[in-house]
Amino acid sequence: MKTDDVRRYLLGLQQNIIGALEAEDGHPFLTDGWVRAPEERLQGDGFSRLVEEGAVFERGGCNFSHVRGPTLPPSATQHRPELAGAPFEAMGVSLVMHPRNPWVPTVHMNVRMFAALPEGKEPVVWFGGGMDLTPYYGFEEDAQHFHRACRDALAPFGDDKYPRFKRWCDEYFFLKHRNEPRGVGGVFFDDFAELGFDDSFAMMRAVGDAFVPAYLPIVQRRRALPYSERERDFQAYRRGRYVEFNLVFDRGTLFGLQSGGRTESILMSMPPVVKWRYNWQPEAGTPEAVLYSDFLRPRDWAA
Amino acid sequence: MKTDDVRRYLLGLQQNIIGALEAEDGHPFLTDGWVRAPEERLQGDGFSRLVEEGAVFERGGCNFSHVRGPTLPPSATQHRPELAGAPFEAMGVSLVMHPRNPWVPTVHMNVRMFAALPEGKEPVVWFGGGMDLTPYYGFEEDAQHFHRACRDALAPFGDDKYPRFKRWCDEYFFLKHRNEPRGVGGVFFDDFAELGFDDSFAMMRAVGDAFVPAYLPIVQRRRALPYSERERDFQAYRRGRYVEFNLVFDRGTLFGLQSGGRTESILMSMPPVVKWRYNWQPEAGTPEAVLYSDFLRPRDWAA
Repeated sequence: MKTDDVRRYLLGLQQNIIGALEAEDGHPFLTDGWVRAPEERLQGDGFSRLVEEGAVFERGGCNFSHVRGPTLPPSATQHRPELAGAPFEAMGVSLVMHPRNPWVPTVHMNVRMFAALPEGKEPVVWFGGGMDLTPYYGFEEDAQHFHRACRDALAPFGDDKYPRFKRWCDEYFFLKHRNEPRGVGGVFFDDFAELGFDDSFAMMRAVGDAFVPAYLPIVQRRRALPYSERERDFQAYRRGRYVEFNLVFDRGTLFGLQSGGRTESILMSMPPVVKWRYNWQPEAGTPEAVLYSDFLRPRDWAA
Repeated sequence: MKTDDVRRYLLGLQQNIIGALEAEDGHPFLTDGWVRAPEERLQGDGFSRLVEEGAVFERGGCNFSHVRGPTLPPSATQHRPELAGAPFEAMGVSLVMHPRNPWVPTVHMNVRMFAALPEGKEPVVWFGGGMDLTPYYGFEEDAQHFHRACRDALAPFGDDKYPRFKRWCDEYFFLKHRNEPRGVGGVFFDDFAELGFDDSFAMMRAVGDAFVPAYLPIVQRRRALPYSERERDFQAYRRGRYVEFNLVFDRGTLFGLQSGGRTESILMSMPPVVKWRYNWQPEAGTPEAVLYSDFLRPRDWAA
C-alpha cells in the first residue's frame, strides 16, 4: 500500500526534525504516544514530541498523527462531492516552536496526506503542507533565507509552485479581524494531487525536508542576542495574535478540537505565556513599529 | 419606539455597573466611544468602558453596542426562517472582569436585544442574557450567593426560569474539547420572547440589575486575601480555558469577529496574562485539585 510509504516518511521526518532541534536546544524533548481505543469512531495513533522550558524553545511540539474514519468530514469533500461519506485515512506531521528569545521567530510547519477510500474504487489521495515564519523583531536576511529555502525546495516541481504557494500562505495566515498577516509567511498548499501520487508525494517530502535548513540557521544566528523585559513583553503581546489565529481561523486546529482530537497535542501550538492589552500601538520609530511597517505586509522575500 | 427604552435602559445599566466597579477598584475606567462610518454596511455606535492594571481588576471591560444592518445574519434566523434576510437591530451590554487576586473569580455578564424589522410588518423582538462565574479557587458560599441572586432575580417571571436558564448556562459554557465546564455557571437565556415584549424586557432588566449585587459582595470578601506566585500561576493557567472557550465556542465573540465588529472591544474578554502548559494536572489533595473535583461540575448551587 502506497500510503505505508507516506507513514514511514512522516515518522522519519519527525525523528529528523526533533533530532536537529534537540541538538540545538540541549534538552531532550518529551515523547507521548497515544492510540485510539478500539470502540471509538475514529481509529488511529500518534506520537507527540514536545519541549517546555528548554534552553532555546520555551514551548513547542512536533506531532505525528494517523487516523482512519468511517466517513469523510464534510469540510474535506466541499470540492469533491462524489467522495462525500467515504471512509478515509489522514496522516501528518505538524510542528510549532515558540522560542524564548524574542529575536528568534516562532515557526510552524505541517505536511499531511489525506486519502478517501470509496468502496470498490481506487483510493483518492491528496497532499498538503507548508511552513511559515512569525518574527517578533524582523530581520530581512532571515525572511529571505526562509523563503529562498521554500522556493528552492519547490523548484524541481515547476516554476509556478513557489509563487502560488507563497500567495496561498499569505492569504491563509491572515488575521481578518486585525487586518494583519500572521508573520512573514512562507508556503502553504492543500488538496494537492495534480502531479499524480508519486510526484505530489515527492513535493510534500521536499517541503518537509526543507524545514530544518530553512529554520535552524535563523535560530543559530539569533539565539544568543541579548534581550530585556521590553522585548519579552512585546513577544508576549504578539503571541496573542498567534492564539487568535489558531483558535479562530486555523482549520486544522478547529477540525481537531471539534472532531474529538487529542486536545493537549493540538494545543501544543499555544504559546507558553501570552498577554493581551487594550488597543496597543507601537510608538513610531521603535523596533516594534518596524515589525508592522516592514514585515507584516506581503513582500517578495525570495527575490 | 419601544426599542428606544431598551437602549436607554442598557446605557443606564452600563453606567451603574461601571460606577460600582470603579468605586470598588479606586481607579477610573477608560471610556472609548465609536461610531460606524456612514458608508459601512452595519451602522451603529457604542461605548467601551475598560480597565487595565486596576487595584482589583487586572483587565476588564463593560461594552455597550447598538448596531443596525440591512439583512439578518443566517446564525440569527436558524429558528425563524420567515425572517431570513430582514433588516435588524441589535443592542447589548457585555462585561468580563479579570481580577488580579486569584481568590476573586472572573465574571461575565451580558444582556441583549435583537429585533428583526421585516418590511411592512411589526418588528419581531427577542431578548437574551445571563451571567456566569469562573473561580480559580472555589468557595461554596460564593457560588451559592451568585446563584441565589440569579434565582431571586428571575423568580417574579415564573418558577421554571431559574432552573431552565441555569441548565442552559451549564450547557452553553462547556468546553467540549476539555470535557470541562467553564466555571460554576449562573444563568443563560437566548431567543426569549415568550412573555411578550414588556415582561420579556422586564426579565432582561431583572438579570442586568442583579449583576452588581450578585458579584460585588464576592469581590469584597476575597479581594484582600493574600496570595503567592503559586496561586497567580494557577490563575494564569486556568485563564487559558477562558481564551479557548471565547475564541473557539462563544457565538457572540465569533459573530463579532466575523462580521467586522470592533476587535479591541470584543477581545476585552481576553485575560491580561495567560499561560499554557502541556498536560498539566493538579496534584491530589491540593487546593487546585479541589477546583476540579468540587466546583467544575454541575451542582445545584441555589438549593
